Amino acid sequence: MTLPSTIAEFREAYEARRPDLAAEFAELAGQREPDDHRVWIRRLGPREIAPYLERLAETDTVSPLRGVPFAIKDNIDLAGVPTTAGCPDYASTPIRSATVVERLIAAGAIPVGKTNMDQFATGLVGTRSPYGAVVNALHPDYISGGSSSGSAVAVKLGVVPFALGTDTAGSGRVPAAFNELVGFKPTRGWWSTRGVVPACRTLDCVSVFTHSIGDARTVARIAGGFDEAEPYARRIEFRDFNVYAARYGVLDPDELPHVDECYRACYADFVDGLPGEPIRLDPAPFLEAAALLYDGPWLAERYAAVGCFLEQHPEALHPVTRRIIVGGNGLSAVDCFRAQYRLAALKRETERAFRGIDVLALPTAPRIYTLTEVEAEPFGPNARLGTFTNFVNLLDFCAVAVPAGRTPAGLPFGVTLMSPAGFDFALLNAAARLVGEVVD
Amino acid sequence: MTLPSTIAEFREAYEARRPDLAAEFAELAGQREPDDHRVWIRRLGPREIAPYLERLAETDTVSPLRGVPFAIKDNIDLAGVPTTAGCPDYASTPIRSATVVERLIAAGAIPVGKTNMDQFATGLVGTRSPYGAVVNALHPDYISGGSSSGSAVAVKLGVVPFALGTDTAGSGRVPAAFNELVGFKPTRGWWSTRGVVPACRTLDCVSVFTHSIGDARTVARIAGGFDEAEPYARRIEFRDFNVYAARYGVLDPDELPHVDECYRACYADFVDGLPGEPIRLDPAPFLEAAALLYDGPWLAERYAAVGCFLEQHPEALHPVTRRIIVGGNGLSAVDCFRAQYRLAALKRETERAFRGIDVLALPTAPRIYTLTEVEAEPFGPNARLGTFTNFVNLLDFCAVAVPAGRTPAGLPFGVTLMSPAGFDFALLNAAARLVGEVVD
Repeated sequence: MTLPSTIAEFREAYEARRPDLAAEFAELAGQREPDDHRVWIRRLGPREIAPYLERLAETDTVSPLRGVPFAIKDNIDLAGVPTTAGCPDYASTPIRSATVVERLIAAGAIPVGKTNMDQFATGLVGTRSPYGAVVNALHPDYISGGSSSGSAVAVKLGVVPFALGTDTAGSGRVPAAFNELVGFKPTRGWWSTRGVVPACRTLDCVSVFTHSIGDARTVARIAGGFDEAEPYARRIEFRDFNVYAARYGVLDPDELPHVDECYRACYADFVDGLPGEPIRLDPAPFLEAAALLYDGPWLAERYAAVGCFLEQHPEALHPVTRRIIVGGNGLSAVDCFRAQYRLAALKRETERAFRGIDVLALPTAPRIYTLTEVEAEPFGPNARLGTFTNFVNLLDFCAVAVPAGRTPAGLPFGVTLMSPAGFDFALLNAAARLVGEVVD
Repeated sequence: MTLPSTIAEFREAYEARRPDLAAEFAELAGQREPDDHRVWIRRLGPREIAPYLERLAETDTVSPLRGVPFAIKDNIDLAGVPTTAGCPDYASTPIRSATVVERLIAAGAIPVGKTNMDQFATGLVGTRSPYGAVVNALHPDYISGGSSSGSAVAVKLGVVPFALGTDTAGSGRVPAAFNELVGFKPTRGWWSTRGVVPACRTLDCVSVFTHSIGDARTVARIAGGFDEAEPYARRIEFRDFNVYAARYGVLDPDELPHVDECYRACYADFVDGLPGEPIRLDPAPFLEAAALLYDGPWLAERYAAVGCFLEQHPEALHPVTRRIIVGGNGLSAVDCFRAQYRLAALKRETERAFRGIDVLALPTAPRIYTLTEVEAEPFGPNARLGTFTNFVNLLDFCAVAVPAGRTPAGLPFGVTLMSPAGFDFALLNAAARLVGEVVD
């Protein structure tokens, strides 16, 4: 028997084997990931999964997600199960699921567990967790990427066909690149963040990992939608470009900062393979915006989110995470506004750049690190990983990370496609075309 | 001969008496305001006005503003004339005019002077100026309102048919109320703020004072429009409501905070005279948002704008202004984001309120003060004056202040009509209907 992997395969499995599926899902979750990769913070047992299946059996919901298991990053609420955000002492058990989780469950999807993550979603490495460093699904010596590390690896190992992450600085894209997956980060505010532990509340997004663009689109149609209850929710007016004539903006492969030679070659190949003539952009406004995220006042949002907890329980935090978040406490409101002014000017510059292109295509990460490298140097590599992702939410783009080949050593390389807010479906189509999937 | 007052009358005067108009404008500016009211920071002389008229004579611009003189608040740049923002030591002479000024001049309007103001646009009183307190155009014992005090009084005295102000907390509305004028504050970002000395840069608007709604509409059509060069400019998508079936939201006159009995009675009369059945709103979210402006971190924007100058030249500032702006320096980025979160939640609440109404109609100011009262107590009265205006830019409304009767003592009372961003022309039509002008 072929084990299911995609949404459609799990969907068929559900229809075919309804009787003891709760036990099977739980078993599958254990079998495919027997804690070698430290994917889970909390796996649901058969008795916790069963009620979702029972309720589903009582309805005749027609949905592509009917009976399809999914995993949830542990900073997103699932009713009745503790949310830790990667910090056991921070745990509290929500009565209500996050809006996105509610929508997925209402469409018939079955939650099977809460996944490991960089504590408080502060990191792009996947190692900053008291539940252990999440190990790359393809190469056990390498990092999984973070902060949505467990969700990515759960999908890659076939435990679930899709898993929710969050993405503020790149947490829904970097793990996709390092585990050869699709990682879709929708336009800010389209998928509600109600019921999500904030990292930078003005920037946070819920994201999804899947094996294909088609599966990401399926989840997007169900998870997205305006949420009256979330002040940062937005009514998105979707926009479109001609996917068959899409103009791609790229950077000169020789000008990419922090990129190792293997990834540089991979990116050069990718650029050569793009349809049409790619357009070289000036990297300056993108890279300057990226630097604002951790060097600027947005760090204060992380302190605003968990500063009180941190002051009362300093020992409860991962030492690396604590050191980063306390840095958000000393910043001034004047600097905060000045950075916002600078960002507004950079937004205008990048708007101009997008007049000549439809999609910006960059390496998702500049390189991949081993677990040992990150352990030896816990700050620098993490900071460099965000070079091409940090600016995306600040500049109000949607983004989808896709696999784009491997290095000679067999390490996965990924690119991220980006477009301005509201081009989500057009962007997914552009990505589908590039990876040879059906355009919708 | 009847002296001109409205845009149309000045327009006709221009056509009729072209030859020595520069001298006439300069003379009129002196004649109608021989510095009794301290309207001017700098009146242009005939030789400064003449080039504008000469250039105009060489063109065949067809425009309702052809040859029409206007005054400019002295925090808005006019090329070649110092901008002081009410602080002589801060003065610098711009090479280029502000975008709005450029647009008006391009349409044939003739600048005749820079008007007095509360220093750095920080105040609603009109007394915080080293150039002297601007005196109310109707009652010399009373304040003119601020911070766009000189512009309002210049229009009321008939020196010019329209004058530019700025409006962050109510500076374009309060002086309209106290001088029985129309004060229109467009949707944030529609009229460019390029070339304007910032007060709170994320909130600042350029505004206009006129005798009529029709004149405000005329100026709006010319002054407004997206400005590529200004990061806070926005592309406005205009929206509409049926002006003949407009639903008016009001507060219970007995629940208005800080309102004196005369203004309360005036507002009750106004509410009684509204077409249709006015809808009583909960004042809480509006008043809480209003309190955020000066009690919250937006004060840091004022420090961000002029803090460096203030630290280097503390003696250059009006003592009251200095004391307010230095208060912006101690605020933290964490508080800044927390206030932004709270504002986002309040925005959601007021959006809900606007589902049941088209226009919110409130007193522009809760009362009027004498010059002596404000001199005796320089902070409290000013703070109270913003009760019904401070929230407007924070909540992203457009607003128009209109005269609405007088108290038994003959003091002017005004109301402000407000609608969400983009309803500017609909709002002007609602105002036109209320004051008996032509709906457009």
